[in-house]
Amino acid sequence: MYAAPQDPAREELMWICNAWYVAAWTHEIEPGRIQARTVIDQPLALYRSSTGGIVALEDRCCHRFAPLSLGRLEGDDLRCMYHGLKFAPDGRCIEIPGQKLIPQSACVRRYPAEVRGSWVWVWMGEPAQADAAKIPTTIALDDAGWRLKSGQLDYDAHYLLIDDNLLDLSHLSFVHEKTIGMDMPQWADLRPRMTPLERGLRFQRWHTDHPPRGFMKKLGERLDVWTAYDFLFPGVFLQRTGFYPPGTAEQSGGQAPAVEPLFHRLDEQAVTPMAERRSRYFYAAGARSGDLDAENLERLYAVTERAFHEDKTLIEAQQKLIDREPERRMLPTSLDAGPTQFRKMVEGLMSAAP
Amino acid sequence: MYAAPQDPAREELMWICNAWYVAAWTHEIEPGRIQARTVIDQPLALYRSSTGGIVALEDRCCHRFAPLSLGRLEGDDLRCMYHGLKFAPDGRCIEIPGQKLIPQSACVRRYPAEVRGSWVWVWMGEPAQADAAKIPTTIALDDAGWRLKSGQLDYDAHYLLIDDNLLDLSHLSFVHEKTIGMDMPQWADLRPRMTPLERGLRFQRWHTDHPPRGFMKKLGERLDVWTAYDFLFPGVFLQRTGFYPPGTAEQSGGQAPAVEPLFHRLDEQAVTPMAERRSRYFYAAGARSGDLDAENLERLYAVTERAFHEDKTLIEAQQKLIDREPERRMLPTSLDAGPTQFRKMVEGLMSAAP
Amino acid sequence: MYAAPQDPAREELMWICNAWYVAAWTHEIEPGRIQARTVIDQPLALYRSSTGGIVALEDRCCHRFAPLSLGRLEGDDLRCMYHGLKFAPDGRCIEIPGQKLIPQSACVRRYPAEVRGSWVWVWMGEPAQADAAKIPTTIALDDAGWRLKSGQLDYDAHYLLIDDNLLDLSHLSFVHEKTIGMDMPQWADLRPRMTPLERGLRFQRWHTDHPPRGFMKKLGERLDVWTAYDFLFPGVFLQRTGFYPPGTAEQSGGQAPAVEPLFHRLDEQAVTPMAERRSRYFYAAGARSGDLDAENLERLYAVTERAFHEDKTLIEAQQKLIDREPERRMLPTSLDAGPTQFRKMVEGLMSAAP
Repeated sequence: MYAAPQDPAREELMWICNAWYVAAWTHEIEPGRIQARTVIDQPLALYRSSTGGIVALEDRCCHRFAPLSLGRLEGDDLRCMYHGLKFAPDGRCIEIPGQKLIPQSACVRRYPAEVRGSWVWVWMGEPAQADAAKIPTTIALDDAGWRLKSGQLDYDAHYLLIDDNLLDLSHLSFVHEKTIGMDMPQWADLRPRMTPLERGLRFQRWHTDHPPRGFMKKLGERLDVWTAYDFLFPGVFLQRTGFYPPGTAEQSGGQAPAVEPLFHRLDEQAVTPMAERRSRYFYAAGARSGDLDAENLERLYAVTERAFHEDKTLIEAQQKLIDREPERRMLPTSLDAGPTQFRKMVEGLMSAAP
Repeated sequence: MYAAPQDPAREELMWICNAWYVAAWTHEIEPGRIQARTVIDQPLALYRSSTGGIVALEDRCCHRFAPLSLGRLEGDDLRCMYHGLKFAPDGRCIEIPGQKLIPQSACVRRYPAEVRGSWVWVWMGEPAQADAAKIPTTIALDDAGWRLKSGQLDYDAHYLLIDDNLLDLSHLSFVHEKTIGMDMPQWADLRPRMTPLERGLRFQRWHTDHPPRGFMKKLGERLDVWTAYDFLFPGVFLQRTGFYPPGTAEQSGGQAPAVEPLFHRLDEQAVTPMAERRSRYFYAAGARSGDLDAENLERLYAVTERAFHEDKTLIEAQQKLIDREPERRMLPTSLDAGPTQFRKMVEGLMSAAP
Repeated sequence: MYAAPQDPAREELMWICNAWYVAAWTHEIEPGRIQARTVIDQPLALYRSSTGGIVALEDRCCHRFAPLSLGRLEGDDLRCMYHGLKFAPDGRCIEIPGQKLIPQSACVRRYPAEVRGSWVWVWMGEPAQADAAKIPTTIALDDAGWRLKSGQLDYDAHYLLIDDNLLDLSHLSFVHEKTIGMDMPQWADLRPRMTPLERGLRFQRWHTDHPPRGFMKKLGERLDVWTAYDFLFPGVFLQRTGFYPPGTAEQSGGQAPAVEPLFHRLDEQAVTPMAERRSRYFYAAGARSGDLDAENLERLYAVTERAFHEDKTLIEAQQKLIDREPERRMLPTSLDAGPTQFRKMVEGLMSAAP
């Protein structure tokens, strides 16, 4: 799946269209400007309509295939600036210079687009099947209850390799031994509880006897840490981490804690496939407003971003090694429960595709 | 035709060999130096012979395929500087170091080459069919009657996409709305008269009520403008633009004017395919010597060159979108008369190829 | 063979595995660090064991294909720093975090590796067939009898094109007319004596009446020069050049001289294929310690390295011209005896491959 395709037909079968993908941060789509983005190999032109909603059109004029993102906004319409064809927000061509008749076939594809939290989501499949209620719930960057910082990173790698990474946090002990893994070296030894979700998996675990570092030291010498995240197709990672006084894990009987944590960290991330070997990784990290001041947010974010570059170095190298011998089989281990189950689900979605 | 080839055989059929192509500006071929150029995927070594003519040889020694353009001129002969084989201007090998017998097969291809105006033209097909009389007539850069400035630009695009652009000037209203199109916004609405030529098309039109800008204002508040250009295979664009007092268009009955213009602009351009997705665009712009001083030539040239970069941005983006889905069909409109007819002619030339 | 492969199967047949290749200079493999190298398209992780020997493992963890060269040395073992699998120097996996059973299939390939002279040699075929006695004998950079300087250069070219170059020194008269060929213009006219070796060829010749230049002038106004080199698969070039008083060639009857030279130059080089169009060229140049002080070594080395860049420019251009038309046939000449015979031997090795 993440190996080089043997033939073009296989490549066509590669993408799951009937899904919501994160195309951009909402703050990237400024009024009056058109942004070009690529999602599952489809070029998109995104802009904000006068009502504040997001318009997502195919970024390719139907006339001579010039990119509409190089065009001009005229109210809520978009004019191609090669030969002047004009399109309404629903994709219909409404003007051809010097020509009165506009054929019905004169249109570009329109993609359903929604803002939820701080992300712009686009539905890449049949518009009729787009159900905005299925978009994962996330915390917006400007939510008063939280103090968050966001960033993004492009990968030269198939999105499922990044998903694999996020579906098996045992790698924190190794890839991130000097950054986000250093406080909890037992990531690799303790397997999380895994629960199936619709189009995803939930992971939960307690780490006990954790020695906090830096500004977290004020919470105590040792802490119990509850980590829980949902991972949803195509690569949405929504994690809450609660830091508790020692003993909380035992009191909770290994289950989710019923009490409020001393410190409540939030990580929200989304992986978006742009092309077969190109993916965008959106992320926000932070904690409850009361748990973290602006200076400590910078500290927390800096180490997090350094960790993401560690992942990128490793995953891009892994992709190159996979592409050397696409047919070679990986060795299954007990570490792979999450990635394996998620891949099975993705394969199910692909074979269910129209 | 401008889409990615499906198989190598198709690529071989891609080029029209029996045609004259602009390989270089004459001033680029300095005495005593060898220049490497590529025309329709053929590597050429160009140099000036002692009689001042241009020699164009295949830029690949027949021995071990070293480029002759890295070789050494010895009089009118060219020695390969890998193992020392020496070639006469007609392509015959005339020396192999340490070997007396030179086989008949020891030769490189010789291409007919001619200087006309300020361009070096090469004939890429059968030498016997090269007819120098068929080379389009152009004004040399140093012609006393004209004040011209030249430049060139390389495109990552198929040459026919650049031809399309030059065959439909309606794009001036959009691509060039802030440069060369701004004075005459009606480019898109008024269709030119189109006349077939041998291996080309002629376009003629009047624009009336044109408000001149900049140094052209001295000609009057409003002008009639007669634009006429011939467009010839592979992409030779020879345009004259005459600026006239208001009323001249009407007096001419919409036909070519019989009188001298107030200002006579000249544009001569040539598109040369280098490879399937690589083309060189040669251009000269200016006016009659008496119409333009050196300072205003710089102004005229600067805006023209800015416009050519606008074309390049758009056409290279268009090429990428075409290559994403080579089989996708463009929407025909009434704007496409020129490109469509020219393409038909090119297809005719290709199917007539030996 | 050096042309672009027509199909993947052909590419697989491209490499000769049962051979020793130079993977690195010994000084590149520092204790405690892992070096990534690629030999015949195989990724290698090289490190020094506690006994000083070189360990060469497949640079790809069997679990998820992360590169082991991004891993961590733990004593003589190597831990993958993606999910923590640990490997012994023989390639066996000896630890999987959080998992007790280690399947037999958990291993990476181990390559026999040897230090000889200043090069690290790896055997890319069946370990059982690796015979260290077959590694060519070379002079180490720190050998007290010699004063040498080393360097390396990467080529975007098939290794056999570089071999061709080294197998026919007639090119010195042309490629290197201004560097190492300038003293002996007769390289192209006098053919050397060629003798077959196991997996190689020996070349020997006298140049007489040689006018030395620079610091070599102190040896005499004219010299006889004896050049002898062995060229061994895959591209090992071991050359001795002796400078003698005039008349020595004649006294030796055209055979190898029995007496000590006035000046004894040494050139040792190795070409290693990394990928189909990527090769590494290792080289050392110098002379007997007594013949050369440090300053003159710098002079000798500088002109030598300039010559190697001349080769690189030419060979990379040649490779591009070959790839334009892979099926085109080269013109055989009497210059090609060395390359032709060596290629025949290589084809024999390839057809003999398992």
